[in-house]
Amino acid sequence: MIHLVALDADDTLWHNEPLYTSTREQFRALIERYEPAGDLDDRLYAIELRNLQHFGYGVKGFVLSMIETAIELTNGRIGSADVNRIIEWGRGMLASPVELLVGVQDAVEDLARSFPLILVTKGDLLHQETKLARSGLGHLFKGIEIVSEKDARVYRTVMARYGVEPERFVMVGNSLRSDVLPAIEAGAHAVYVPYAISWVHERVPDGALPDPCHYHQLAHIRDLPALLQRLGAPARSGV
Amino acid sequence: MIHLVALDADDTLWHNEPLYTSTREQFRALIERYEPAGDLDDRLYAIELRNLQHFGYGVKGFVLSMIETAIELTNGRIGSADVNRIIEWGRGMLASPVELLVGVQDAVEDLARSFPLILVTKGDLLHQETKLARSGLGHLFKGIEIVSEKDARVYRTVMARYGVEPERFVMVGNSLRSDVLPAIEAGAHAVYVPYAISWVHERVPDGALPDPCHYHQLAHIRDLPALLQRLGAPARSGV
Repeated sequence: MIHLVALDADDTLWHNEPLYTSTREQFRALIERYEPAGDLDDRLYAIELRNLQHFGYGVKGFVLSMIETAIELTNGRIGSADVNRIIEWGRGMLASPVELLVGVQDAVEDLARSFPLILVTKGDLLHQETKLARSGLGHLFKGIEIVSEKDARVYRTVMARYGVEPERFVMVGNSLRSDVLPAIEAGAHAVYVPYAISWVHERVPDGALPDPCHYHQLAHIRDLPALLQRLGAPARSGV
Repeated sequence: MIHLVALDADDTLWHNEPLYTSTREQFRALIERYEPAGDLDDRLYAIELRNLQHFGYGVKGFVLSMIETAIELTNGRIGSADVNRIIEWGRGMLASPVELLVGVQDAVEDLARSFPLILVTKGDLLHQETKLARSGLGHLFKGIEIVSEKDARVYRTVMARYGVEPERFVMVGNSLRSDVLPAIEAGAHAVYVPYAISWVHERVPDGALPDPCHYHQLAHIRDLPALLQRLGAPARSGV
């Protein structure tokens, strides 16, 4: 029986990666006014990865990484108007409307009738709070856990905070690396709902799929309420 | 009787503002290689303030605001090596050692024997978690609440989360604007422990001092355990 359902936010409830993808395309076009952009994607990713330990996940770290990449790839020739442009993209990303995935509204409303829901997400604290408020879903969540990393330790802390046993907890999200594998490592259930595109950092090697007793995969979030009913709703279900 | 003690972090438990002050001094020296820096402090603060709604509190937003200010004040002549330098200062600030204020170690250990303690702080999530880990005080806190803003609503949410009545909750910090006034507005007690310097954004006009029944001021955090014992420790005190 499931006592607490945790949902990832970006690319699980609302679209996020397309915003990064389109910003990366604008960034490539900007760099190509200076130099052939060649291995830009690899360079940007390497700098993002190096900066993760300092800046964490989210738009602000991404903006700082783009500025550093631009300076490196143009051998310092990038103009300050273009640096301003990159920062302006960041402000635009942070202010961008929240677009729910198809079926999310109904699925989350349906789930909330049977289970307490929490949101567990990485990224900028202020930005994630703002997105949840703009999503119109905030009132359906009992709690919001914005975390700096999603590993087994963090899932154990979240479960302890809500006083729920791992066997009674399920994490739902679009990232095998962040939502599924560490939740299962912590003894919980996990539901993988893939999104059309994923940041390379969130990918895992083939063959890393986990313990089938706790692992579930869905093609679409609209099938989540039925799956969780099968796993078992608490007694107050249907009341 | 007090059931939960919440402590601010930056400039209450450890030094923080001096890091910003010395970075602002380096920033002024950098700008002066281009232009007389004149009203640099006002310009930087105006840009920080405009960016707060987008970037929130913390080092990354400060770095982005410095870059924008530098571009504006140099009329776009800032060199990309200097932009890199500003980002490098940010990484340095994030990695900088955590230096506890005098008396904090003893006071927090003393308090933790009588009261459950939580940390309530603004800023970058990852950075604040890292600082708490480096501080060596993490094990003394029952919870950590990293929030995007400190207003009465946020304090009410925190109190609800820990199931504590406002009359049983006390917030301790160095900012009248963030730690004291909104906590008292939410019905809680608050203890103001001033720090030597404060960011202009955290200042409040004279005469804004609150309800004396719930307001306490201390010259030094070492006097906090005795004050809270007078307000009343829970029954498990001394056990």
